[in-house]
Amino acid sequence: METEKNYHMTADDFRKQGHALIDWIARYYETVEALPVLSQNRPGDVRRQLPEHAPQTGEPFSVMMQDVERIILPGVTHWQSPNFFAFFPSNSSYPAVLGELLSAGLGVQGMLWASSPACTELETHVMDWLVDMMDLPPGFKSDSAGGGVIQESASSGALCAIVAARERATELASNRRGCNGRLTAYASTQAHSSIEKAIKLAGIGGENLRLIPTDARYAMRPDALAAAIGQDREKGLKPFFVAATVGTTSVNGMDPLPEIGRICQAEKLWLHVDGAMAGSAAVCPEFRRFFIGLDSADSYCFNPHKWLFTNFDCDCFFVRNRAALIQALTILPEYLRNQATESGAVIDYRDWQVSLGRRFRALKLWFVIRHYGVEGLQHHIRRHVRWAQTFAGWVSENEAFELTAPPPLNLVCFRLRGSDALNQTLMDRLNQSGRLYLTHTKLNDRLVLRFCVGQTHTEFHHVQQAWNLITTFAQDLQKKQ
Amino acid sequence: METEKNYHMTADDFRKQGHALIDWIARYYETVEALPVLSQNRPGDVRRQLPEHAPQTGEPFSVMMQDVERIILPGVTHWQSPNFFAFFPSNSSYPAVLGELLSAGLGVQGMLWASSPACTELETHVMDWLVDMMDLPPGFKSDSAGGGVIQESASSGALCAIVAARERATELASNRRGCNGRLTAYASTQAHSSIEKAIKLAGIGGENLRLIPTDARYAMRPDALAAAIGQDREKGLKPFFVAATVGTTSVNGMDPLPEIGRICQAEKLWLHVDGAMAGSAAVCPEFRRFFIGLDSADSYCFNPHKWLFTNFDCDCFFVRNRAALIQALTILPEYLRNQATESGAVIDYRDWQVSLGRRFRALKLWFVIRHYGVEGLQHHIRRHVRWAQTFAGWVSENEAFELTAPPPLNLVCFRLRGSDALNQTLMDRLNQSGRLYLTHTKLNDRLVLRFCVGQTHTEFHHVQQAWNLITTFAQDLQKKQ
Repeated sequence: METEKNYHMTADDFRKQGHALIDWIARYYETVEALPVLSQNRPGDVRRQLPEHAPQTGEPFSVMMQDVERIILPGVTHWQSPNFFAFFPSNSSYPAVLGELLSAGLGVQGMLWASSPACTELETHVMDWLVDMMDLPPGFKSDSAGGGVIQESASSGALCAIVAARERATELASNRRGCNGRLTAYASTQAHSSIEKAIKLAGIGGENLRLIPTDARYAMRPDALAAAIGQDREKGLKPFFVAATVGTTSVNGMDPLPEIGRICQAEKLWLHVDGAMAGSAAVCPEFRRFFIGLDSADSYCFNPHKWLFTNFDCDCFFVRNRAALIQALTILPEYLRNQATESGAVIDYRDWQVSLGRRFRALKLWFVIRHYGVEGLQHHIRRHVRWAQTFAGWVSENEAFELTAPPPLNLVCFRLRGSDALNQTLMDRLNQSGRLYLTHTKLNDRLVLRFCVGQTHTEFHHVQQAWNLITTFAQDLQKKQ
Repeated sequence: METEKNYHMTADDFRKQGHALIDWIARYYETVEALPVLSQNRPGDVRRQLPEHAPQTGEPFSVMMQDVERIILPGVTHWQSPNFFAFFPSNSSYPAVLGELLSAGLGVQGMLWASSPACTELETHVMDWLVDMMDLPPGFKSDSAGGGVIQESASSGALCAIVAARERATELASNRRGCNGRLTAYASTQAHSSIEKAIKLAGIGGENLRLIPTDARYAMRPDALAAAIGQDREKGLKPFFVAATVGTTSVNGMDPLPEIGRICQAEKLWLHVDGAMAGSAAVCPEFRRFFIGLDSADSYCFNPHKWLFTNFDCDCFFVRNRAALIQALTILPEYLRNQATESGAVIDYRDWQVSLGRRFRALKLWFVIRHYGVEGLQHHIRRHVRWAQTFAGWVSENEAFELTAPPPLNLVCFRLRGSDALNQTLMDRLNQSGRLYLTHTKLNDRLVLRFCVGQTHTEFHHVQQAWNLITTFAQDLQKKQ
């Protein structure tokens, strides 16, 4: 049958361009180490090289790839460089990239079980795998009252947790009539900014989030939490939600889950635990001590897209009572009705998240787990932790530096003895050198450098090189003072 | 320097597996037409074939791909089949798949300009291109007070719009102290369920969303909108937000933007326009009549991941006053502070969305626009609309069927004359045949079939085949009655 002219890329051209792009990516990973980690671009550098208007007629793919090399790449900060020690990592791996590629190729929507059953079932299955692999509470498995789902990020996971908690506390009245400004929530001063953002998004009000002080190790003080809850009850307010963190962003502080859990159970508050980066450590038995008490959590999330070799986005979010989550988030317009949903025999993940649509994200996580195996994941997590501990040892032994706190896992916070300005200059020069990238935080009103070991392709010699560079730059700075 | 044992896939293995996967995807597109569009799986079919526990040691990638063929593929509903006419499409294309692959390979985070400048600048640039390509209001361009951003979905876009509107209406008081149940919002009875969901998420309360009746063409009645707003003001409530739709989900109803815009301006309400699928039609001048009045919108979104050949997720969201959006969503913890942000010279997209992290989604949209060129996109949108109109003509001419409403674009709503049960049976048999997939809705309490022409690889003969199949099955059903 004759087919009208079309502008699609042919399958053969896709094969050709696809092979070339695969090779480009492999070469990128082989050579990324030599590129300046932090982009040296100034504002507008990318845009001024791009044509003002979209092309009227199509262009060859090879021309686009030339522009990627020439315009885009210099504007990229190389999160996949082995010399990336900034923020939390957002590590990826070849199997994850292949999983993302397959997901894009299949291009299915997983909003309903019926809209692509494998998309839902593989996700449920892999989430169950994780519970066993990491010895997470069995109540997070799909054969219990709970279950797991892949969210876009810990931010959207926190929002879902807060809304589920809000509806549990108000018996769905807020969903019907709106919030009333009487609900109060709790997180430590070190909790991630996404908690405050989600509290605002959910109509709770930022002033109704109590920031609980932390102890010397930057962990939430349970006594202060209990006191804050008590004060709010005395005022006639309605405490409903606590966010605890396993591995805070600034310094990997570890909130004491058992004590916080007991308070939440006694006070009937929803406990959400944010293990965004550190959660991956639970794959190793020796790091599971940080997760003791997780069985009292109503919801928990961690991000394989940070530290488990699975490219963003992949936030694993678990709830102990899926009905509470679904009740808060469900919608069922006629055009989504179907027999599988009505049978009650299936999960429809649209009711577990903000958005309706969803990609087949389980593929990449499945590929990663199967490629590495549990022992491979353990091996790499252990290496990162060991190297960070070694790095912390070097810091401790060097009189020019101070270690802010003993690092529990793979994030080392330290500073050059001296002013904040000195530390800022040190960081800026290191980052401008292009040879590594690290970021900072403030602790006790002092600027502190953060060195996080979590990039997939980081080897020990990169950590050694980084420390050599840091000490060399520091000596140079101190000489000039 | 010696490197410790690792479990990573080697670059050479990635090349080999990557080439094979590219070929697999090309073959998938070449043969998908022959597969049953709607998965024939029953609940549990995928899970029962998967091992209960994650593997302890790694497995070869080729074994995983065998499982993809054997276990996953039968559980996939083929959204990329040319015989997919269900829901709204979620179409993709080879250039989009390559863009997603490159994005996964680079693996950058675009939360801040500084965290990868090209990720932000390319996104801003491509969003500006779209404004010009589609003749959208110039106030949506980044050189005005507004701007565009790629969101995960129209659902998350709606949530951001509602929160920005909420904070504008309350002068940031809800962000500080929480919602008070006095704000009221408006959308037609035909608006997408994501509006109701976002209204609940944002703490407004579902009962404070007024569902405005529609006219004979399923378009919002401005007189009814004005009346509802007036009634709420009389009750002392505070109207703040209207969602209008260009192309409703059930039937592609077109809300009258000029009249609604005038009401919103007079009443000082935030007007959000949801053009999720139909928005792509604006690439063709002859369809821009549906967008007249868009210049009075405070925010607007449409999804290239529905009908512009760009794989999910890619929702293009525009605001007329970016300050209103940013004020509502901003957070700035110390660990995200940087000189570029403080200079005020850059966009930090974290403040334009729910999540902090974000992928480099502009790449795929950039590749699609450049591959097709404006004329290629126009060509394919036009074909879809023309074929849907032809299909509607066939329905009109066939006495056994009735056309529910004249289709404005590419979605045809129709029914077999007879009971809902008859139509349900017709749909079920068609879908069970595997030869096409379509879905239903209810209009005026009657079950109606929806036939949406928007799949990338649909050609005219697929539409002909579909109609032949529908009429054949219908005749067969009517004979048996």
